Amino acid sequence: MPFATLDDLRAACRALPHGNEQAAAAATARQNNLTKPPGSLGLLEDLAIWLARWQGRERPRLDRVSIVVFAGNHGIAARGVSAFPPEVTAQMVANYAAGGAAINKLAAFAGAKLDVVPITLDRPTADFTTAPAMSAEEFLKAFDIGFRAVEPGTDLFAFGEMGIANTTVASALCAALLGGGGERWVGRGTGVDDAGLVRKREVVDAGIARHRGILGDPLAVAVALGGRELAAMAGAALAARIHRVPVLLDGFVASAAVLPLARLAPGVLDHCRAAHASAETAHGALLDALGMTPLLHLGMRLGEATGAAAAMLLVRAALACHNGMATFADAGVAEKI
Amino acid sequence: MPFATLDDLRAACRALPHGNEQAAAAATARQNNLTKPPGSLGLLEDLAIWLARWQGRERPRLDRVSIVVFAGNHGIAARGVSAFPPEVTAQMVANYAAGGAAINKLAAFAGAKLDVVPITLDRPTADFTTAPAMSAEEFLKAFDIGFRAVEPGTDLFAFGEMGIANTTVASALCAALLGGGGERWVGRGTGVDDAGLVRKREVVDAGIARHRGILGDPLAVAVALGGRELAAMAGAALAARIHRVPVLLDGFVASAAVLPLARLAPGVLDHCRAAHASAETAHGALLDALGMTPLLHLGMRLGEATGAAAAMLLVRAALACHNGMATFADAGVAEKI
Repeated sequence: MPFATLDDLRAACRALPHGNEQAAAAATARQNNLTKPPGSLGLLEDLAIWLARWQGRERPRLDRVSIVVFAGNHGIAARGVSAFPPEVTAQMVANYAAGGAAINKLAAFAGAKLDVVPITLDRPTADFTTAPAMSAEEFLKAFDIGFRAVEPGTDLFAFGEMGIANTTVASALCAALLGGGGERWVGRGTGVDDAGLVRKREVVDAGIARHRGILGDPLAVAVALGGRELAAMAGAALAARIHRVPVLLDGFVASAAVLPLARLAPGVLDHCRAAHASAETAHGALLDALGMTPLLHLGMRLGEATGAAAAMLLVRAALACHNGMATFADAGVAEKI
Repeated sequence: MPFATLDDLRAACRALPHGNEQAAAAATARQNNLTKPPGSLGLLEDLAIWLARWQGRERPRLDRVSIVVFAGNHGIAARGVSAFPPEVTAQMVANYAAGGAAINKLAAFAGAKLDVVPITLDRPTADFTTAPAMSAEEFLKAFDIGFRAVEPGTDLFAFGEMGIANTTVASALCAALLGGGGERWVGRGTGVDDAGLVRKREVVDAGIARHRGILGDPLAVAVALGGRELAAMAGAALAARIHRVPVLLDGFVASAAVLPLARLAPGVLDHCRAAHASAETAHGALLDALGMTPLLHLGMRLGEATGAAAAMLLVRAALACHNGMATFADAGVAEKI
């Protein structure tokens, strides 16, 4: 296990490698010579330069693109906070294995390898309204599973999640670390009704009240109010940073999972871009808090890395232009007057 | 030529085939049975249903996807309204033929056949500040070129343009048909400086003043203030509607090109979706006037159908989910409580 204690993890977040600004500058210069008005490909130019920065290559590549979906179960599911019963977590894991879920189709279309990692689904976290969701050891074990899921040399990475009740967990992390309570951070998730929405808010507020003493410590919050699949996503995000692998952040739960890292030290998520703004009410506010601008606004709210996979298409489009277009000189096209 | 007179064209816009609501309803029902919370794929669900409606199939296909870029030259280019010299139109057409432009890369990645149709580049339209840009006959000839560019049985179509000075033309069409003058509708196009921006506004206002008498007639406006590549795009849009081919509208110039059709009769563009909101200032207001919500917001402003090609990736992603995902029953996943 790379991090034996939470303090080891805290220390790692203070000594991270940075992007390659020389490669980014070379990629920027290349963009300005391609046969188009400078800047006219908008975010597609930014994405190519972002890849160049983190891959350390003027002309990046997307040969090894990887998506990992982590699954976990949650004690608070028993509190009626989801529109679906908790057995759906394992049923969807089986659906991924059979190739029938949205992420199977989107990952294949985006040219990404898909791995699904269920984490002790038969052992949900504790109900965080009555106890810490996990012990520090359980958290670190799940974090490590995510950390090991990122292979060095990956060109682009994304993670996603499946876990009935985990939008409530994500809301609890946001409320704990950003303030505002259930009122501010709870949305309908997979589609709870009005009564379910009230229950979700109450559960979040009860969790915050129960763990009032540790709210100033981002990792303690991730342990007490988080979940195994969220811990694994945080582990994957940190591993990607250590290996300088660019990451597309999926939706609300994935973004909430890495919030504790962002609160540990500034810049920990500099290698990440928000793939999309989901329809989950609080996702926009969470991305604002993370200082991230989403690439897509498609009203998606499925999780399982589907938003990230959709954004991968844009990244591939960006790279096709960046690596493949002719320069003004190549093509004999007159430049700007 | 399918339309011998402008009146023939007007009549055609009043007798158009509609989408297949039965196929759309079947596709909607299918979406609600797939293994995801209903609605959770957001716009990806809408896009699949849109394809179903216009293709008339519960499970649409994207085997024949086509992009056509029309190119034209403009008398008003001599007025210093562009950051690039007018010879760039022909140079970019050569670049398309050589495969070096952004649209070459994006069309290939989107799995679309790309055709480029230059329209009498050696004969620019007249300067609309002093004369009508075209005669009705010239307009109809260009319209016909676009009309014939859409093959019946195409599964998804997009058109784009290349024509130095054509954002000024597009602004003139908007100002003529929607009001507000150059101030409201002129932006920087390929990147004119402040003085160029002032010239663009003056040229638009002079054009409106010169043709004051015909501003109530959308087709007369397209003749007097338009351009050949814009006429061709309008022709392609109408042909697509007649053949029930769904269309992704590209950026500001492509959207302005079809505005006269939209003003002829309500619903003419029901088969079109706006691919993106470009960085060209007035595009958002134009899409509002067309009653369209853009799929992407990437800050692109290149034209040549690049925004439409990017959106095609989303349409393909939508269809991969729609046609490929398992249903709740197939996968043995519990439905919503």
